[in-house]
Amino acid sequence: MSRWLAPTTFLLLAPLLIAAAPTDALKNTPSAAEIAAAAPASDWRAIDPEDTVYLDLPKGRVIIELAPAFAPNHVANIKALARARYFDGAYVVRVQDNYVVQWSQPDAKLGLGAGKATLKAEFDRPNGADLPFAPLPDPDTYAAQTGFSDGFPAARDPAQGRAWLAHCYGMVGAGRDNDADSGGGAELYAVIGNPPRNLDRNVTLVGRVVQGIELMSAMPRGTGDLGFYEHPEERIPIKAITVAADLPPAQRVDLDTMRTGSASFARLVEARRNRHDDWYKHASGHVDVCSVKVPVRVHGSN
Amino acid sequence: MSRWLAPTTFLLLAPLLIAAAPTDALKNTPSAAEIAAAAPASDWRAIDPEDTVYLDLPKGRVIIELAPAFAPNHVANIKALARARYFDGAYVVRVQDNYVVQWSQPDAKLGLGAGKATLKAEFDRPNGADLPFAPLPDPDTYAAQTGFSDGFPAARDPAQGRAWLAHCYGMVGAGRDNDADSGGGAELYAVIGNPPRNLDRNVTLVGRVVQGIELMSAMPRGTGDLGFYEHPEERIPIKAITVAADLPPAQRVDLDTMRTGSASFARLVEARRNRHDDWYKHASGHVDVCSVKVPVRVHGSN
Repeated sequence: MSRWLAPTTFLLLAPLLIAAAPTDALKNTPSAAEIAAAAPASDWRAIDPEDTVYLDLPKGRVIIELAPAFAPNHVANIKALARARYFDGAYVVRVQDNYVVQWSQPDAKLGLGAGKATLKAEFDRPNGADLPFAPLPDPDTYAAQTGFSDGFPAARDPAQGRAWLAHCYGMVGAGRDNDADSGGGAELYAVIGNPPRNLDRNVTLVGRVVQGIELMSAMPRGTGDLGFYEHPEERIPIKAITVAADLPPAQRVDLDTMRTGSASFARLVEARRNRHDDWYKHASGHVDVCSVKVPVRVHGSN
Repeated sequence: MSRWLAPTTFLLLAPLLIAAAPTDALKNTPSAAEIAAAAPASDWRAIDPEDTVYLDLPKGRVIIELAPAFAPNHVANIKALARARYFDGAYVVRVQDNYVVQWSQPDAKLGLGAGKATLKAEFDRPNGADLPFAPLPDPDTYAAQTGFSDGFPAARDPAQGRAWLAHCYGMVGAGRDNDADSGGGAELYAVIGNPPRNLDRNVTLVGRVVQGIELMSAMPRGTGDLGFYEHPEERIPIKAITVAADLPPAQRVDLDTMRTGSASFARLVEARRNRHDDWYKHASGHVDVCSVKVPVRVHGSN
């Protein structure tokens, strides 16, 4: 066990290259944990319980932050469906390796409540001045520009005036049939592999998993076409999907996310781009939007 | 279950855009399976059993194609260690979500045989005319150019005259300590998440999983630092790692891989870049090196 792929220890050494991170130039590149620990309270925002849903599985809780800035109608619909207890007794029905975990309600006894079965697509939105966007400096294979919008990995095309969420690991989207407007949030998926960026602007992304994605990514793979479970008994039951704000405060998990427009986040991005320490021999000098994990912590912790 | 994220059915429709794939312009973009089925025998090569190792786990077999063109010394060493039965009774000791599965031999009773404990790094190699390289047309965040070298995802920098393997899903590398030359293949890892491309040129990549990666990616995540299993009883035993050529032919799994310099593979790349069918509404027009899965089939099948 002596050979670690990437060590936790960061000993002092003289960096070979002095990169564009002045405060870090004379010592080792800080780790994400060190940057998070040093971030002032103003560089964090509390994740709003009204935009948070808990997906409770037999092995634990997955916490999803919804993205009303990108998919307001889908977010409202998912909350309406959750409040109608539509998802109680839903199932994970598909686990396709290196792609997605998908869940649905094959037997919706309780009906849709105030929710709708389908909605008009929200694949992208105007790239307006009202949209926070912290751009990354490096080229992206798929989009004119990528970056982070208030915690979410995103892309935009200033020439077209459009912006959209990016299919990175842990992003949650609304499954649909062939018709663009056949989704709505009654069936959802989470990305558990290589970013399927060719899905960008083809599906409505509705949020991101901020805790517990490993409960989904380690699920047994389905052996049917597209990773669907072949036998009903293989399905993994979902106890419920609950809007966090509907629970008494003592039953919530209050989380903070690092503000992606903050100086601390810029420092994290630069640390990912140019890493100099005892272990790294070659700083890539670049980072792509799906390779920066936005720090999330229990509210107020350090 | 009616809402599929991506359907298997491909009905006829008039594409909205006629893209740069003349043979496919007037019908739906073919699927990878359709392109593979139509590929002539000359567009496939048999994977050499001398460059193949079987890693046998309790739940099944993982098949790894080694990459002697990029890491000749590491490949020879891994084969020497396998032939010394060094890996018999090794363990998966680390499963870090969205990153790697790593295995090692904590109790090497049988010794190294003709193998070595450490080797000089093989992080990259000359980008010579002897290196097959089918470049992709789209920009990459990390490298001047990416593409495929005889089945392996790779990158190169013509200005520096260097080429290297890329850390895509399923790639296998040699763990190391801080010293660049402290790896060698006695401890290995496989990528099971977002491509950690910042590891390119920092670790010696030795091959790619061509079958069975889902046996690793679905393993329980370790709860220790860096995803190490905290308790010895959590480790997943490896029965053996065997060079395929050392088994009688009847006990081998003979596989073909699509030639990445072939017309069929170029067609596959273009189908990934510009997909037009009933389901896709927006063709991304681009593809990155980790998002093209090189087709592998049982030898001679179709």
